[in-house]
Amino acid sequence: MAKPIDKLARERNFCVIMAGGVGSRFWPESRNSRPKQFLDFFGTGQSLLQMTVNRFRDLVPIENILIVTNVLYKDLMLEQLPELKPEQILCEPARRNTAPCVAYAISHISGIMGRRMGIKSIADVDWNDDASHANIIVAPSDHLILREDKFIETLKVGLHHISEHDSLLTLGMRPTRPETGYGYIQLDCAEGKKENAVLPVKTFTEKPNLDLAKVFFESGEFLWNSGIFLWNLRAIRKAFRTHQPTIADVFKEGDEVMSTPAEEAFIQEKFPTCPSISLDYGILEKAADVRVIYADFGWSDLGTWGSLYDLGKKDENKNVALHGNTLFYESNGNVVTLPEGNLAVIEGMQEMIVAQNGNVLLICRKENEQSIRQIVAEVENKFNGKYT
Amino acid sequence: MAKPIDKLARERNFCVIMAGGVGSRFWPESRNSRPKQFLDFFGTGQSLLQMTVNRFRDLVPIENILIVTNVLYKDLMLEQLPELKPEQILCEPARRNTAPCVAYAISHISGIMGRRMGIKSIADVDWNDDASHANIIVAPSDHLILREDKFIETLKVGLHHISEHDSLLTLGMRPTRPETGYGYIQLDCAEGKKENAVLPVKTFTEKPNLDLAKVFFESGEFLWNSGIFLWNLRAIRKAFRTHQPTIADVFKEGDEVMSTPAEEAFIQEKFPTCPSISLDYGILEKAADVRVIYADFGWSDLGTWGSLYDLGKKDENKNVALHGNTLFYESNGNVVTLPEGNLAVIEGMQEMIVAQNGNVLLICRKENEQSIRQIVAEVENKFNGKYT
Repeated sequence: MAKPIDKLARERNFCVIMAGGVGSRFWPESRNSRPKQFLDFFGTGQSLLQMTVNRFRDLVPIENILIVTNVLYKDLMLEQLPELKPEQILCEPARRNTAPCVAYAISHISGIMGRRMGIKSIADVDWNDDASHANIIVAPSDHLILREDKFIETLKVGLHHISEHDSLLTLGMRPTRPETGYGYIQLDCAEGKKENAVLPVKTFTEKPNLDLAKVFFESGEFLWNSGIFLWNLRAIRKAFRTHQPTIADVFKEGDEVMSTPAEEAFIQEKFPTCPSISLDYGILEKAADVRVIYADFGWSDLGTWGSLYDLGKKDENKNVALHGNTLFYESNGNVVTLPEGNLAVIEGMQEMIVAQNGNVLLICRKENEQSIRQIVAEVENKFNGKYT
Repeated sequence: MAKPIDKLARERNFCVIMAGGVGSRFWPESRNSRPKQFLDFFGTGQSLLQMTVNRFRDLVPIENILIVTNVLYKDLMLEQLPELKPEQILCEPARRNTAPCVAYAISHISGIMGRRMGIKSIADVDWNDDASHANIIVAPSDHLILREDKFIETLKVGLHHISEHDSLLTLGMRPTRPETGYGYIQLDCAEGKKENAVLPVKTFTEKPNLDLAKVFFESGEFLWNSGIFLWNLRAIRKAFRTHQPTIADVFKEGDEVMSTPAEEAFIQEKFPTCPSISLDYGILEKAADVRVIYADFGWSDLGTWGSLYDLGKKDENKNVALHGNTLFYESNGNVVTLPEGNLAVIEGMQEMIVAQNGNVLLICRKENEQSIRQIVAEVENKFNGKYT
């Protein structure tokens, strides 16, 4: 009799890191040529991407970590992650939002599992065979997690759940303020809400306005949507087939080439034919067995300067100097980032963002940071990419 | 019979440009290694020093233009002024304010005139002999003059006066506002006050407070002290001998070496023994025949960011971008200077100075710019000169 399959075996754990963003909200700190995930925002000596990869090492073998990114960033990826082989960097030839991005990775992992089973075409794999079982964590490359020990505990709970169930799991963060910069997940039932509980989901919501965010925050029924997911390979394959058949069909054509040297040419040709759609909208809002783990490990999506300010170390006048030396005089509530080794002297300024990088200096009210995207678009047009 | 001496002959005109300043008020645009006079503040392609030298070319032969500066800046001088010979750069081995600076130049010119007369030691020159006559203009290296044609007219009036009289002449500028950043010259008698009139002086005053500046401005008896002087060699030699005998004695020891290859060693040894004293306080406030030319040629000593702001081209929101590209959004009354080719985006900022240069960024309220000197001193101490 064959040895029973351990569905929690380490080699069945995969991690898909989504790293295709351009991060224009952090311009000029981020640039088209070096987006947010490649930056060492907190002066730790590691970029957000490197921190992200490192925090999965305990649970996922390094060869099972896949990065999905734009082809533009492949060299930068390999430079920052020298332990990864080139075939672990999945390159999108076009930007098609998160659903096709994840479908690509899922299809690549399907190829790997098929090969492990000695099966040439993904089409021939029996996904009810435990030998095809894989646990997959999907995470953005550019988030901050403060309590990595608690993060690992939460993931262990999630991995255990998906090794037994075909649920789509998402990590919901305990909200600490009525934040308008995040999407929220409404619990179907807030009973039994405690750390690392796996709970049923009622709805996903878009970023709310402030009044609504306050209602969400006070109700106790809403969690922040972290954009970190767990599922097993069978469950997510089925979800794409059911809810995004167009995307599933695109990748079905690659059943014989995924995770082989022919994959790249196939992706180059077919990936751009995928519709552009988000994972949340395309899969999670439609799927039946969607669950959330109630998590609390000090998380930020670092989507805004405000979040960097909130996380940064403040002086007695609530100024944050992220990089470089800054001397503040009669100034309060500012956040400043400079090239390493540079000095800024700030006199008589309140509640501003100051970001100097390369040939660009940005000075902007913290409360108006949402206008940075628009400004970057204007700068892009006006100077033909010289400063973006 | 010998041909009579033309005391207005071009070769008798000398110009002494004082260029020893370190310009800490314009930090970080100015640095210890590159003070204000070496900067092209207005993007004209010429530094303030180069503009200063060029505006004397019509009246003074290039070989009669002398620069007095700190020995630190000799190479930079020759780089910016390749037409000048090294011996035209008079190097102060120590900072001793303007009276010793001018005494040095006067002694150097005395040596030149002595040699022209075939006399070896300055001590043997008869300064009542018209053959020793020299007209000397003394000017700072870092001022802005907008109407150079009117400036030349004024100088011609001054040169004519000093060719005939042993007066000490100063240029007094028609005040256009109750400026507190300038010293003032009180006329002994405001009658006959018209452009290019040579008028008697009652007193020199230090920079006034605002109330006093308003009184000065409204009285019609006060002119701005430009720090530009004219005198003939005999008159200024006599003034030093009478009012600053200690300084005169220091240079008397050099009577045989000035304007020879031995001058440098002499200055190196003896110049630092001079007392530190200003020309205004040490000579002009004490001398008997001091006169002022009432001048009006669009002058600024560029002593403050405010003066640069006042002179700069303003957009419809009164912002001034001196160098580099700046995009302003909901911002008013700012002055910004950047490295050439750089971009700044300024959103929601009012009445500030933004100066980025090398490894330093300064952001400071315009109204508080007097604190920059103090800040520079603190930065100097704190970072051991790394940023100053």
